[in-house]
Amino acid sequence: MSPASIDLREHIRDIPDFPKPGIMFKDITPLLGHPEAFRASIDRLAQAFSDQKLDAIAAAEARGFIFGAPLALALNVGFIPIRKPGKLPYATIAMEYQLEYGHDRLEVHSDALKPGNRVLLLDDVLATGGTMRACCDLIQQTGAEVAACAFILELDFLKGRERLEPYEVFSLIRYP
Amino acid sequence: MSPASIDLREHIRDIPDFPKPGIMFKDITPLLGHPEAFRASIDRLAQAFSDQKLDAIAAAEARGFIFGAPLALALNVGFIPIRKPGKLPYATIAMEYQLEYGHDRLEVHSDALKPGNRVLLLDDVLATGGTMRACCDLIQQTGAEVAACAFILELDFLKGRERLEPYEVFSLIRYP
Repeated sequence: MSPASIDLREHIRDIPDFPKPGIMFKDITPLLGHPEAFRASIDRLAQAFSDQKLDAIAAAEARGFIFGAPLALALNVGFIPIRKPGKLPYATIAMEYQLEYGHDRLEVHSDALKPGNRVLLLDDVLATGGTMRACCDLIQQTGAEVAACAFILELDFLKGRERLEPYEVFSLIRYP
Repeated sequence: MSPASIDLREHIRDIPDFPKPGIMFKDITPLLGHPEAFRASIDRLAQAFSDQKLDAIAAAEARGFIFGAPLALALNVGFIPIRKPGKLPYATIAMEYQLEYGHDRLEVHSDALKPGNRVLLLDDVLATGGTMRACCDLIQQTGAEVAACAFILELDFLKGRERLEPYEVFSLIRYP
């Protein structure tokens, strides 16, 4: 099958009631297990941003790493991991953010970016946008600039896109 | 600089006393931030296993994902994420393993592999080998076969290689 004819939706699996009752989880592991589909997802992201000046791809652990690292290689820029507290060994900049109950924190190495660097943020799924919003705020805090937020798939009904305004949002698949 | 002339060691940073006093941590984030060095690490791993019949690359979260996903694409095989408990949405097979204090657990989707599949396991650092040993045992439990264990760097003095016997161990960089 030629890469252009691959329908990525066929490689996303619905898992009902995960992680809790009433949630229909979009499982991307079938896509990862299919090399042509996985490659097509990276190629299409790379193509969408091939005309932008980018200095790095940044992504939050853990699933963001799976797409962020190959995309960085495809676009020939560095890859910057955004991590949970205490995981990065060097000096960090941190951003706290609210969860449904309580809060969480994301960190990036303080020397990973320079002021003015343009960073493409990537994650697998755009749901409510809470984690990606925190990533945007974290990147801004380093003095770098968020070029756009990209996703493999987006759940439109959760309106995560609104939470990410005014940043550009790009998704390979959108579910109404 | 041509890829063959890149010295990967120059892109690994020593961080003293992380995650606790007395430990010299090998930080791979400078390598990730340097696209030519990152690409060279993936190319060299792909070349080392190009003559083996492989069905998948598997790697444990989170840093393993950063190298495992691009290597799967380079070798044109599927990528299988090995995760902490409760992260994978579909039915899983699990493996408990001992830590210095207490124990931990790794999971893989039960439909990720078929009996007889040959799997290359990958992680960034081989230290004592505890996590990778658990990954090997987990893959064996699915009925698939561990083709080899590969690493970006290996800390020889911790003798992790012995813990992984009889599996083949391949590392791009070895520190005595």
